[in-house]
Amino acid sequence: MDQLIQRALSGEPRSVARLISLVESDSPFVERVMKQLYPHSGKAQIIGITGSPGAGKSTLVDKLIRRFKKDGKQVGIIAVDPSSPFSGGAILGDRLRMQDHALDPDVFIRSMGTRGSLGGVSRATHEAALILDACGKDVILIETVGVGQSEIDIVKIADTVCLVLVPGMGDDVQIMKAGIMEIADVFLVNKADREGADKVVADVRIMLDLSPQKAWRPPVLKTAAEKDTGIDEAAAAIDSHSAFLQKTEEGRMRRYARLEMEVEGILRREIASLVERAWAERKDQGVLEALEERRMDPYSLAGDLLDGVFSARG
Amino acid sequence: MDQLIQRALSGEPRSVARLISLVESDSPFVERVMKQLYPHSGKAQIIGITGSPGAGKSTLVDKLIRRFKKDGKQVGIIAVDPSSPFSGGAILGDRLRMQDHALDPDVFIRSMGTRGSLGGVSRATHEAALILDACGKDVILIETVGVGQSEIDIVKIADTVCLVLVPGMGDDVQIMKAGIMEIADVFLVNKADREGADKVVADVRIMLDLSPQKAWRPPVLKTAAEKDTGIDEAAAAIDSHSAFLQKTEEGRMRRYARLEMEVEGILRREIASLVERAWAERKDQGVLEALEERRMDPYSLAGDLLDGVFSARG
Repeated sequence: MDQLIQRALSGEPRSVARLISLVESDSPFVERVMKQLYPHSGKAQIIGITGSPGAGKSTLVDKLIRRFKKDGKQVGIIAVDPSSPFSGGAILGDRLRMQDHALDPDVFIRSMGTRGSLGGVSRATHEAALILDACGKDVILIETVGVGQSEIDIVKIADTVCLVLVPGMGDDVQIMKAGIMEIADVFLVNKADREGADKVVADVRIMLDLSPQKAWRPPVLKTAAEKDTGIDEAAAAIDSHSAFLQKTEEGRMRRYARLEMEVEGILRREIASLVERAWAERKDQGVLEALEERRMDPYSLAGDLLDGVFSARG
Repeated sequence: MDQLIQRALSGEPRSVARLISLVESDSPFVERVMKQLYPHSGKAQIIGITGSPGAGKSTLVDKLIRRFKKDGKQVGIIAVDPSSPFSGGAILGDRLRMQDHALDPDVFIRSMGTRGSLGGVSRATHEAALILDACGKDVILIETVGVGQSEIDIVKIADTVCLVLVPGMGDDVQIMKAGIMEIADVFLVNKADREGADKVVADVRIMLDLSPQKAWRPPVLKTAAEKDTGIDEAAAAIDSHSAFLQKTEEGRMRRYARLEMEVEGILRREIASLVERAWAERKDQGVLEALEERRMDPYSLAGDLLDGVFSARG
């Protein structure tokens, strides 16, 4: 294990991939791995890219990878897939891999499912980002799809959140995106060669005018990733948001919030696994029958289980 | 508090509403309330209605309410709103209230946010459904919007899940819906007077043919809620699924799974509040700084905090 960690820290892609797999499968080695990697982390720029399916995020990410590489940066990509909780699936990562980064040693691409786990969806993604950070990636792009709470949680991991919009989406989408709109640091109106792009830009600006004013006003940029238009400007906007975070109180608050989230996530997972074991020991046909027939209530049962866990360890 | 519970159990709407508010705000009284209500629950038929925005779910729910009322049933509605985690918001519930059920004493309508709470999104919704059940509602409709894990979790609360589809949605939607498709017990192709309805019906049937065959084959029905077409058939399909659950092993497994989810949800909430307290006591500028500067790692810190929790309670 220590050898694996050393190889990963030196940037060896297969070892990095194996560490991420440990995290994803909630291996008992996670704590040991993360304790050793943690001191090496905290240097990378973590960028979240989110937006509706069909907004062209994969192409945009592809172009941003090329852009960052030109600056001599090592790039890590985590594609969070909207996989079914039942059948799994990987879409975005595969799409990126097809775009000939697969054999590039400076680009590491990883798909991760949104399959619910006890520690929360964001936990494994966050730990994967920490691993990439510790193992020498300068820029980490986290791409997510969707509008649910879990996507918003994942996006909280990022230093800079880019929301990719696209002309021609219905009003429904605008409503659904409300939660995500508020955490966007950079708005990218992609496929901007399409009709309606200026309208989207104007709508977002109106929304920003109506929102409480903050120290950072998110820029609203037009891109056409397929035509390689606006990519430099997008990268520049991301970089200037990074610079803003580095030197402001707001940036420090954001880093602290992420640290708090880290600690809370670890605590929840630890306690959850203790409780899960207690419940697994107690759970049988008889208990479930008693609950179904209302001879027992789950609140009293939970209290008993917790008492058991504490008296066993205390 | 005991008086409030008694009035709610007798079906008094304002008391029922107050109990749901307690659950929604994660009040310390929740446990006491739920312990008293739980023995009275377990009688209602819980129906989940989900599907994309624009599928006409509110109109469909409106018609189903009327249909169930004709059978002399008391109906409770929980509309889970795709509210922003920041600004809140209520859409579906308001829409239903406008449809003149607001003054009907046999219909109870409640909007609940999807705002992330410590115990998870589904917990408050589930407890609200238990409250309505205990307080005498015969049928409880839970309407959700969206495609995220949280919507899927909410839908797991239901005995019977109806997925509302609509002609003219893109392929993206079909992909996103994969997770939800697999938990649907009844497919309703709404706005079936529109072009393409038969295609949607055929597509769903093909998907069902390709999926593993189960004891219950979900029916695929056409409705046009605005024209009151297909509502009786939809209600009949829901009822026959309820009957199937009542008399089969599959139904019993489903009830057991829900009971397990209940117990686990309560445990998670208890744990979260323990963790929150422990962390709140320790958390200060110094600890966050030490984490940020990598002089401390969150895994070791979490271990310390846990030891503290256990020795305090053990």
